[in-house]
Amino acid sequence: MAVFDIDPIVKSLHAIRQDWRDSQRRPREPDGREFPSREAVAQAMNELKGALFPMRLGPTDLRHESEDYYVGYTLESALHSLLDQARLELRYLARNDDDVGDVAVQARAAEAIRNLALSLPQIRRLLDSDTLAAYHGDPAARTVDEVLLCYPGMEAMIYHRIAHQLYRQGLPLLARVASELAHSQTGIDIHPGAQIGGSFFIDHGTGVVIGETTIIGERVRIYQAVTLGAKRFPTDENGSLQKGLPRHPIVEDDVVIYAGATILGRVTLGKGCVIGGNVWLTQDVQAGSYVTQADCTPSRQESTARL
Amino acid sequence: MAVFDIDPIVKSLHAIRQDWRDSQRRPREPDGREFPSREAVAQAMNELKGALFPMRLGPTDLRHESEDYYVGYTLESALHSLLDQARLELRYLARNDDDVGDVAVQARAAEAIRNLALSLPQIRRLLDSDTLAAYHGDPAARTVDEVLLCYPGMEAMIYHRIAHQLYRQGLPLLARVASELAHSQTGIDIHPGAQIGGSFFIDHGTGVVIGETTIIGERVRIYQAVTLGAKRFPTDENGSLQKGLPRHPIVEDDVVIYAGATILGRVTLGKGCVIGGNVWLTQDVQAGSYVTQADCTPSRQESTARL
Amino acid sequence: MAVFDIDPIVKSLHAIRQDWRDSQRRPREPDGREFPSREAVAQAMNELKGALFPMRLGPTDLRHESEDYYVGYTLESALHSLLDQARLELRYLARNDDDVGDVAVQARAAEAIRNLALSLPQIRRLLDSDTLAAYHGDPAARTVDEVLLCYPGMEAMIYHRIAHQLYRQGLPLLARVASELAHSQTGIDIHPGAQIGGSFFIDHGTGVVIGETTIIGERVRIYQAVTLGAKRFPTDENGSLQKGLPRHPIVEDDVVIYAGATILGRVTLGKGCVIGGNVWLTQDVQAGSYVTQADCTPSRQESTARL
Amino acid sequence: MAVFDIDPIVKSLHAIRQDWRDSQRRPREPDGREFPSREAVAQAMNELKGALFPMRLGPTDLRHESEDYYVGYTLESALHSLLDQARLELRYLARNDDDVGDVAVQARAAEAIRNLALSLPQIRRLLDSDTLAAYHGDPAARTVDEVLLCYPGMEAMIYHRIAHQLYRQGLPLLARVASELAHSQTGIDIHPGAQIGGSFFIDHGTGVVIGETTIIGERVRIYQAVTLGAKRFPTDENGSLQKGLPRHPIVEDDVVIYAGATILGRVTLGKGCVIGGNVWLTQDVQAGSYVTQADCTPSRQESTARL
Amino acid sequence: MAVFDIDPIVKSLHAIRQDWRDSQRRPREPDGREFPSREAVAQAMNELKGALFPMRLGPTDLRHESEDYYVGYTLESALHSLLDQARLELRYLARNDDDVGDVAVQARAAEAIRNLALSLPQIRRLLDSDTLAAYHGDPAARTVDEVLLCYPGMEAMIYHRIAHQLYRQGLPLLARVASELAHSQTGIDIHPGAQIGGSFFIDHGTGVVIGETTIIGERVRIYQAVTLGAKRFPTDENGSLQKGLPRHPIVEDDVVIYAGATILGRVTLGKGCVIGGNVWLTQDVQAGSYVTQADCTPSRQESTARL
Amino acid sequence: MAVFDIDPIVKSLHAIRQDWRDSQRRPREPDGREFPSREAVAQAMNELKGALFPMRLGPTDLRHESEDYYVGYTLESALHSLLDQARLELRYLARNDDDVGDVAVQARAAEAIRNLALSLPQIRRLLDSDTLAAYHGDPAARTVDEVLLCYPGMEAMIYHRIAHQLYRQGLPLLARVASELAHSQTGIDIHPGAQIGGSFFIDHGTGVVIGETTIIGERVRIYQAVTLGAKRFPTDENGSLQKGLPRHPIVEDDVVIYAGATILGRVTLGKGCVIGGNVWLTQDVQAGSYVTQADCTPSRQESTARL
Repeated sequence: MAVFDIDPIVKSLHAIRQDWRDSQRRPREPDGREFPSREAVAQAMNELKGALFPMRLGPTDLRHESEDYYVGYTLESALHSLLDQARLELRYLARNDDDVGDVAVQARAAEAIRNLALSLPQIRRLLDSDTLAAYHGDPAARTVDEVLLCYPGMEAMIYHRIAHQLYRQGLPLLARVASELAHSQTGIDIHPGAQIGGSFFIDHGTGVVIGETTIIGERVRIYQAVTLGAKRFPTDENGSLQKGLPRHPIVEDDVVIYAGATILGRVTLGKGCVIGGNVWLTQDVQAGSYVTQADCTPSRQESTARL
Repeated sequence: MAVFDIDPIVKSLHAIRQDWRDSQRRPREPDGREFPSREAVAQAMNELKGALFPMRLGPTDLRHESEDYYVGYTLESALHSLLDQARLELRYLARNDDDVGDVAVQARAAEAIRNLALSLPQIRRLLDSDTLAAYHGDPAARTVDEVLLCYPGMEAMIYHRIAHQLYRQGLPLLARVASELAHSQTGIDIHPGAQIGGSFFIDHGTGVVIGETTIIGERVRIYQAVTLGAKRFPTDENGSLQKGLPRHPIVEDDVVIYAGATILGRVTLGKGCVIGGNVWLTQDVQAGSYVTQADCTPSRQESTARL
Repeated sequence: MAVFDIDPIVKSLHAIRQDWRDSQRRPREPDGREFPSREAVAQAMNELKGALFPMRLGPTDLRHESEDYYVGYTLESALHSLLDQARLELRYLARNDDDVGDVAVQARAAEAIRNLALSLPQIRRLLDSDTLAAYHGDPAARTVDEVLLCYPGMEAMIYHRIAHQLYRQGLPLLARVASELAHSQTGIDIHPGAQIGGSFFIDHGTGVVIGETTIIGERVRIYQAVTLGAKRFPTDENGSLQKGLPRHPIVEDDVVIYAGATILGRVTLGKGCVIGGNVWLTQDVQAGSYVTQADCTPSRQESTARL
Repeated sequence: MAVFDIDPIVKSLHAIRQDWRDSQRRPREPDGREFPSREAVAQAMNELKGALFPMRLGPTDLRHESEDYYVGYTLESALHSLLDQARLELRYLARNDDDVGDVAVQARAAEAIRNLALSLPQIRRLLDSDTLAAYHGDPAARTVDEVLLCYPGMEAMIYHRIAHQLYRQGLPLLARVASELAHSQTGIDIHPGAQIGGSFFIDHGTGVVIGETTIIGERVRIYQAVTLGAKRFPTDENGSLQKGLPRHPIVEDDVVIYAGATILGRVTLGKGCVIGGNVWLTQDVQAGSYVTQADCTPSRQESTARL
Repeated sequence: MAVFDIDPIVKSLHAIRQDWRDSQRRPREPDGREFPSREAVAQAMNELKGALFPMRLGPTDLRHESEDYYVGYTLESALHSLLDQARLELRYLARNDDDVGDVAVQARAAEAIRNLALSLPQIRRLLDSDTLAAYHGDPAARTVDEVLLCYPGMEAMIYHRIAHQLYRQGLPLLARVASELAHSQTGIDIHPGAQIGGSFFIDHGTGVVIGETTIIGERVRIYQAVTLGAKRFPTDENGSLQKGLPRHPIVEDDVVIYAGATILGRVTLGKGCVIGGNVWLTQDVQAGSYVTQADCTPSRQESTARL
Repeated sequence: MAVFDIDPIVKSLHAIRQDWRDSQRRPREPDGREFPSREAVAQAMNELKGALFPMRLGPTDLRHESEDYYVGYTLESALHSLLDQARLELRYLARNDDDVGDVAVQARAAEAIRNLALSLPQIRRLLDSDTLAAYHGDPAARTVDEVLLCYPGMEAMIYHRIAHQLYRQGLPLLARVASELAHSQTGIDIHPGAQIGGSFFIDHGTGVVIGETTIIGERVRIYQAVTLGAKRFPTDENGSLQKGLPRHPIVEDDVVIYAGATILGRVTLGKGCVIGGNVWLTQDVQAGSYVTQADCTPSRQESTARL
């Protein structure tokens, strides 16, 4: 006799899916996978990483004489795979819009990924600047290669700089999938919308959150558990969240933000200022100033014997 | 000549394992794998995820016409695999109890997993409410599908809602393995014992900790690095920790807890209250109130030139 | 017609790589992979984990009668693989030093890994003490086996105790790769240079950061998001960071540090002291004392109706 | 310095491919993969094998209660995969025919695979008869299950009966790919065009060749190295081979053909006749007769001492 | 709309399976996999191959110092896997016999595999003699290692010598699965029942068939396409095949049989005799004699111009 | 209690390996893998196949625009892998020759593989001629692509033409491994030493054997089970086989050999002659003649009723 009575559970799950589809005004019999695949994006991102840094992050046994062959082959494979996914995203976004045909979707997808491709050299230059920033900013870093191979902040930035291009090219979902892949690997959560200048260095990184409309200048350095977040979410007259408004900090060039600091809202941290650890900030900070937690910090100390 | 002299190291490790087994009063020659496997649980959880959301989290090329077939086949496979693991856990738990025979273990394992199976439709309904809560609670969320595919909070809740059933069915170890799988992926650490109502939303999530005896109502929203923890661990007269006592917060309906807040002990956060970022709380909070950090927050600011 | 015009992008990336190599004074045509591989280290670490705990973390179907065979075979494989990687690291480190020949590199690599091998029994003993510490320190822990199988803190310590040996044997890069593998899995970031005594327990763990020159005694317990970091980075007369100076805390025996506490600089936490949650500390703490956040903690509470 | 000078070889191979494409009047820049994939067909055939015999040739851990779920899911996956391949074949066949559009190709592919799907129950019935024939015809066969699991002749017939349907549905290339997969596994080479009745048994099988226009009745039994081939290949007035003419034997019901026999041309082996081992036949054989090699068989025997 | 209407086909296949189970007097709802798995046997055989020849056919990177560890670990894994399969076979064989309980099945399975294990040293010795026989018997063989690595005849004999033990231990189905694995790889079809002495050499091998009751002495050499088969299959009074009767040749020591020769029935080829290519034999051959095809061999030759 | 007593079997197998090594005058403690790996050769051959025919036998999703990148990358990978294996073979061959140092071995290996690389364009041209020969020679062939994708004869020739180069470059063992890979897939056994001209076509192929010193001209066609073998193996005064002597047939241009024909010894089949099926030949055949089996072929026919 069977241990489990599967049939009624299958039927029940079927009914709930129909309810959900009805509630979301979806067709009850969807036409196959109409949605991008996390696995496909993951593989393409990995290939791009190899194409950008073939001798360090490409295949173990790569040799110089086939470096360009590897780059060309891998790049082409990654781009075509992203093209497929871009088509799925754009078709999905236009699913309720009868005026957008398959040809238009295909053309827009191709243009988006072509633009991503064209931006890769610039992305590599930015990432080289990030590598140097980490090397110069961390006393524990022995070589630039160690940074590239080991630092979670580098991993996060490789994904972010590509994801940001996807975001700019009108592919916010692919961008988000890409950035969540890095989030899962590193504990660093950078929204693909965030604009980040060169020579950026995140040390340790676990718990860092950088919001969608954040703008970060050149040579900025931040530590673990720093939040660059929104203060509040304005709603419109119907009580719905207003989406897309600038709501995260602007961080100017040469700022340093120590671990655990929380900066909320559309405030500006002026050029070269330093934000101390655990500081909670919801106001602008002048260029060149140093913000630390107030005097309550000297904490109370008593003998454990009295506990 | 051999580079390594392996034999003495093997012997030495052997002796240490014997010491450990002796110290734990185990047989020196254990009878094969008497313990659940992390890999087996991981695979079964992944299958359940696909069975719950076949068109989004199931195989990439699934089509509507085989949706139910896929669900039935995958479900059955996952349940039998969990049944094997449940048997291992129960037999392990009863390893010092001569009165519990194999037949009893098998019967209890089957009942536990059968109950899990029966709860799956309800789990799917709860997860649908979580998806909507995220969509409505995050201005960056564009579609419900993006939430399901990308948000680490959803990943954590899919695992938690199943793990919680395993916990309730007397399989705390399988439950813990499942929840640690999500912890590793997302940085969100929810103990499987925690009771969590519908429409729950965790944004960003890294560093969230929710303890074993926590109780959370409907429509609660929390942000990264929130801790719902224990204040102290009472010990019995022998100095041993007392296990299983209620020691974590009760969070009533419609509460919001911002990033980095720490709530410790069996306190109650009343319906609809809002806890500000970084707040440290070890007391009850009245329904409808707003708690923020005290005035020491305005931090000290001085010119970096003076450093 | 091709969708992408790959050739110019390949050429452009080629040029940027040449620029980078020039700027780093590297040969333009590197001689194959001269750098350790993350994947190879990952596999070797996994094998060592299995060799240390064959019946719990080794292959699912291992049986007692082949335990030693498995240990010997796996150990030998892991050590030879690490030997290859050690050679790559040492050759890379000596790449500008004509006086260091291949034979010398090979001899030093062999000695380093041989010393690692000899330390494995001691590492296992230390890890057994960590397992017991977790079991006795966490009311949610039901068995020592649950600790070993599920606790991210154990995973982090298995990797750390091996990585620390690699670090001590002059292989800082392999050590760092190993510790970042654990960081990615657990959110716990322990620099391989940190010296950590027996019976160490990290609960939950996400966001923990332990710096390179930290020294931790026996029976210490820490919680999630604790930072044992550097306060500032002294620079030499040229403005370059001074590397290798002691700059992280000393934590004496029996100390407990609760979640979110931040301890910075070469301070000493005296034997048996307790550091409360979220405390920010840059000074020494006397043995036996209890440090909590100062009185600003009682936070402000008002009705949400007034917002 | 590089060991190999790859560039000129790549260029040279490029030039030869261009020559080949020119000689075959192909476009110099083909549009991606326009041709079916051996791997895709192999996987689909394997899935069909599992769908036809779920408990014997399906997944090892299949249980009765999910048998139909498995069959439905696997079938649907295999059919869609074959549909993709069928489209590739039909588009390829019509590559020089401007009148055949993508819609027509798609419609024909769908019809072809739909017909294959509808024939599967009948194919299973025929294969059941083949299993019984092997069981009854081989003194070494202990059970019907042994036949299904072990006999290369069964493997060959499972592939053939499906390949023959593909052939009949106008997909000769997919059919050929499928039959060559079996040929490689078993050494049995059955052209997919061959028509074979029920209860067919091939023992041992290595070296069996059955040509395209062969017709085989019910309950026929053949042994290894039997050839049912063509005698000559008629050419048309231009000297080109005339394709598609009946040129292989007709084998009526209940015939037995022993090992190594060669039957060539459009001859008829009458009902119930028996063809002895190694016989060479190019003429019809009357029903009920027994053909053996002529008297030259008694071979010459002399002492090896004389060699 | 769905391309395929899967449901009726699933139902139809279900009905046919029920018919088959009824016709075979099987339960309509079988209890999971009650039958050995080809994949499991394949893996175990591969492991045994590595355990027998660790440095040649074991893992590529094996080193001398872990040779015994590898052998012990692999052997134990292979034996336990075969034990599981043996249990499945014996339970299947006893499925209609209420007197045979699980304990008896388990005991018999363990005894069988234990005997196989004890025979492995002798098997290795025999295989060493086969290797030398090939090396001395083939002018193209340059080294004994080439024989072991490349010769299909060696592959076939490694499988056969193990399969023959399985056969002798009352596990004919496992034995058959093992021998068909080699048949598929090599085109050499040796029934596991065949008894074959040491120093046996099969050259080329494709098409060789050696029947169940064949007995082969020491130092025999055979070439491709040789058949040692049965002449006829005696039936009992009911017309059923009589199974198990001696019906294949006896080949005495030092016999050579050239390619394509066919020897049928319980005939004896006397010590040291030589059978020429393509000879067809159904009679005894005296020791020391040389049998060639009769005079009809000189074939007819005419000008192709006359065709 | 353990089911198997592994230790004595491990010890016994150890002793037998020592015996074998002693008998072969090998060191008792060999220095790791000193022998080429079948798996490594298999993978390199597969890569070369893809590099030669990228759009047909390369990766499924290859597109024209990355064809050359794929070819360059894959070629380089395959050549370096073969270089490693060549080094192993040459070092093995020179293992008893103290005068051959590692540098010399490396130089010879590099030269050998470099020559193979240079011959690849010519190999591709020859294979193109083979493809056309099959297309024109088989009435069942519909397109040249079908030939390339499906015909076992093409598979065998791709492997052979590469293996023959390896053989000519002094790497007989790698050559043999490569040719046995094709033998296992196709049942066609071509010794890598055989010299075969362009436009060669093997139909069906199972059981074909072509010996080491065979020489085949242009436009030759052969069918299944044809043997081009040696007649006898001359021995020297010590009774040892004389290796390397010409001992297989010479087949001149435009010859056709039908299925099952056996041609033995250093005979010459003159230009354009045709050898009928099953013919046994040990003499020269004049150009332009047609050889068939003698008159004994018309076989005896009687009623089965009389049996």
